[in-house]
Amino acid sequence: MSPVQVPRPASEATAAARAARDATIPAEYRLPKSAFPLPKNPSSVLETSGLLTPAELAIVNLDATALAEEIRARKVTSVDATTAYVKAAALAHQATNCLVELFPAEALERAAFLDAELAAGRNHGAFHGVPVSIKDHIDVKGHDSPSGFLSFVGKMVAEEDAHLVRILRDAGAVFYCKTTNPQSLMHLETDSYLGETSCPFNTDLTSGGSSGGEGAILGFKASALGVGADIGGSVRSPAANCGIYSFKPSVGRLPNMGMVYPIGQKGYEGILGTQAPMGRSVRDMELYMRVFAAAEPWFREPGVEVKPWREVERKAKLRIGVLYDDGVVRPVAPVRRALDAAVAKLKAAGHEVVEFAPFKSAENWDIISKLYWPDNGALVRRHLANSGEPMRPLTEWIISQAGDKERSVSEIIGLAGQRDYFRYDFSVYWRNAGVDVVLSPVGPTPAPEHGTAKYWNYTSYWNLTNYPAGVFPTGLAVDPALDAEDGTYSARNESEAFVYAHYDAEVSVDAPICLQVVGYLGLEEETLSAMGTIAAVVQE
Amino acid sequence: MSPVQVPRPASEATAAARAARDATIPAEYRLPKSAFPLPKNPSSVLETSGLLTPAELAIVNLDATALAEEIRARKVTSVDATTAYVKAAALAHQATNCLVELFPAEALERAAFLDAELAAGRNHGAFHGVPVSIKDHIDVKGHDSPSGFLSFVGKMVAEEDAHLVRILRDAGAVFYCKTTNPQSLMHLETDSYLGETSCPFNTDLTSGGSSGGEGAILGFKASALGVGADIGGSVRSPAANCGIYSFKPSVGRLPNMGMVYPIGQKGYEGILGTQAPMGRSVRDMELYMRVFAAAEPWFREPGVEVKPWREVERKAKLRIGVLYDDGVVRPVAPVRRALDAAVAKLKAAGHEVVEFAPFKSAENWDIISKLYWPDNGALVRRHLANSGEPMRPLTEWIISQAGDKERSVSEIIGLAGQRDYFRYDFSVYWRNAGVDVVLSPVGPTPAPEHGTAKYWNYTSYWNLTNYPAGVFPTGLAVDPALDAEDGTYSARNESEAFVYAHYDAEVSVDAPICLQVVGYLGLEEETLSAMGTIAAVVQE
Repeated sequence: MSPVQVPRPASEATAAARAARDATIPAEYRLPKSAFPLPKNPSSVLETSGLLTPAELAIVNLDATALAEEIRARKVTSVDATTAYVKAAALAHQATNCLVELFPAEALERAAFLDAELAAGRNHGAFHGVPVSIKDHIDVKGHDSPSGFLSFVGKMVAEEDAHLVRILRDAGAVFYCKTTNPQSLMHLETDSYLGETSCPFNTDLTSGGSSGGEGAILGFKASALGVGADIGGSVRSPAANCGIYSFKPSVGRLPNMGMVYPIGQKGYEGILGTQAPMGRSVRDMELYMRVFAAAEPWFREPGVEVKPWREVERKAKLRIGVLYDDGVVRPVAPVRRALDAAVAKLKAAGHEVVEFAPFKSAENWDIISKLYWPDNGALVRRHLANSGEPMRPLTEWIISQAGDKERSVSEIIGLAGQRDYFRYDFSVYWRNAGVDVVLSPVGPTPAPEHGTAKYWNYTSYWNLTNYPAGVFPTGLAVDPALDAEDGTYSARNESEAFVYAHYDAEVSVDAPICLQVVGYLGLEEETLSAMGTIAAVVQE
Repeated sequence: MSPVQVPRPASEATAAARAARDATIPAEYRLPKSAFPLPKNPSSVLETSGLLTPAELAIVNLDATALAEEIRARKVTSVDATTAYVKAAALAHQATNCLVELFPAEALERAAFLDAELAAGRNHGAFHGVPVSIKDHIDVKGHDSPSGFLSFVGKMVAEEDAHLVRILRDAGAVFYCKTTNPQSLMHLETDSYLGETSCPFNTDLTSGGSSGGEGAILGFKASALGVGADIGGSVRSPAANCGIYSFKPSVGRLPNMGMVYPIGQKGYEGILGTQAPMGRSVRDMELYMRVFAAAEPWFREPGVEVKPWREVERKAKLRIGVLYDDGVVRPVAPVRRALDAAVAKLKAAGHEVVEFAPFKSAENWDIISKLYWPDNGALVRRHLANSGEPMRPLTEWIISQAGDKERSVSEIIGLAGQRDYFRYDFSVYWRNAGVDVVLSPVGPTPAPEHGTAKYWNYTSYWNLTNYPAGVFPTGLAVDPALDAEDGTYSARNESEAFVYAHYDAEVSVDAPICLQVVGYLGLEEETLSAMGTIAAVVQE
């Protein structure tokens, strides 16, 4: 008989997991104790630390497309780029707590291989030599995927690459780290047994989630390209909070096999998420989508639609619907300022801008929040019980949104039916609006304070409807001189009251302000094309 | 207070429904009493009745593509074509019991309008003026869709066209009839309160189902093009039994909105069916698919993939996998004969032909038969109880295949998970086989005797995997001199024993022999292209 295993107390296991994670940061890239506490806006540490050479700082200022071009032209080696990004990631982690694992040795070996390949005339693809960061719950061969649960630590070492990792690797990517996601994967923040991940421009604020490690590392310029996943806003919230780009396609466009999704039973399809790129430019998002379509993932994954990338012409004049307010929670001052500024610039650039009135916003949340939890959170509770890890408040909150109810087969199917009617009704509404895209807030606020991100509707709406939606930075950030709320706004409901009670321009200083561009279901090409146009105008 | 409605006894209501249906056949197109009983093979009645003029007989010998061309060239009017098909349909119905309703007045008015439009230079589209028949459970504005349930008669008058009907109408189609489907929509036969629909070449045999009215009317040359639906073989079984063509695309390619599906709760997606064309040539199947893609149905129906039609080059040399036996029920003699003949011709024509060994045939049925009935048939029982209509033996049988079990949410989701693993495993298996398409029987027998079609695996396999699959006639038919079974075959299981016990070449004389061509998931273009090549070689 084997001896009875006595599990360690959760607190001890947590400390051990954190220590093991911290040990993956090379000692030479750790800041001296004297550097702490870092400034509230730690983004400057990248330069002030002196860890990166000027050449390395130049590298981390490039988007993936430009870096790939530099590598292809042999102006920069993949080893140079990987070294720069490993250093930057080590700093980003110390500033924001964004890593689950850093694996520089493996990455540098791979980078050296790719440099040799290129020297020998063998270009592996569009991302040849480019460092790519990966959200924890996506399998990378040989690496653990605890996915935000303490009970999974050390038990989820991937035997195979996720399908998407394989495609990126085949295209020449260099994986060098895995990044944090929250307990349960279902927060628009990133807080787990590994602690909280912060916005790289203001550590009082959350990086967003659930792909919050990606948001932080990319916002810090410590990754050239990242991969997250989105079922309610999980690449868009962190992109918005951290001032970067992301693009959630409609489900069915990108391969998802090999992602750990331990909170839902295999076969459940009431609401589906999708992996999604996060990065440094719109053209990087487009390149990512092109690379995936060219890889014909439908031959390896039956759930992916047979859908070659369509090269579409960029429209000179867009008809843009603007969602100023979803009718439930009005955005706070800085978001309104950014939206107004964007509208003014877009009009000045000759685009047609019309108001896009909200359509059944509250009903969206009523349906999707229930669809998230067909088992009423039973799997989450089981994973927590296995380690004794306490349930975090945002986990408890999001599960509670489903009504704390066991549902029958007929009720579960009925919810999916409601979803389908909603999609249909919305498609009619969209068509009647006659817009190319909708320009919208990504949330009611810029990065919220830790623990307060509870309003998902500006992002989850596009999961229930399954419309492609991207995020881009406006170039603006919260400025207390411009963005204070005077307290006179009278909240229409509890959700709105909560948001306004927790927004303070002083606290939120320097938080980037991003916006969202949404296109019609399945039209990834047109959506990204329009986002490119809009981002360029708004950032001018 | 309204008076209590006392429902009529089911037998009385059935007689009334049949009489009302029969009354839609114009008196002048009814055969004299002396013509009955019709021959066991009533297909000759089309010519021998004298009802159709030689010009009309020439019209009904055309496929839809050719008829559309004749109309476009103004060699034939739509009124001529519609008149021919109304006459032919009246005869087909008297021979096979294939109609739910014939509506010549509406059709002729529409045809006259389209003739006038063409004369004025307004061509409505690819099917301008072409008569199209429609399976009962697909909504056609102003017409009832009882869909095989007595309790629905008179209560399902469509207020709108189904999406597909609208697209066909926009392309110039003339609807002139609705055709039978079985009680519950879930038989590979067509038997309901309206009686049994028969094979137009041998009325001792079933037309197949569930789109069996379409099979019979098209096999009788009484429709230029038809629309059915398929969730387990429902366009392929009747095509095979009646010697015509059909093509079931992967789910997601064609719009399905506006089809009555009264046996499943809205929102259920464990197994999904698709509408599908049935007709007279491979090129008609291709034209149908092109017309639907060109209509961009994804803008009106969120479930349809954004997937323009890809024009693919016809491969000069195909690699064809042949499924000779699914490992559970070996096909009977005439099917083996047709398959062997096809293989010989395909090899002679220079194609590479390899055996495609069966993969988990029994497991397919185990999963899909349960997926069909998440409610254990409760909705079917309710509709029957509402009228007192007895449950037909094949309804009882198919529901019983699910195990007569109420399943929990977790069990239902688990079945969908099994489906997904099956799809994945099969995609690997297919890729390793390296074939362009699979050539397979459509069922273990040609059209079976009424009441005996209980082996779905050769068709339902491609519903669980969701691969596109078409049917074409080989040009062969059952010949007792060639196709007798000598009784020495030792059945491997009960299903096989049942099939062999119910096959008799003498009884099945003249039953057409068709084969099935299957392509990879989502590759409708390549599948139809290959089917065109294969059908041409086999029919030589």
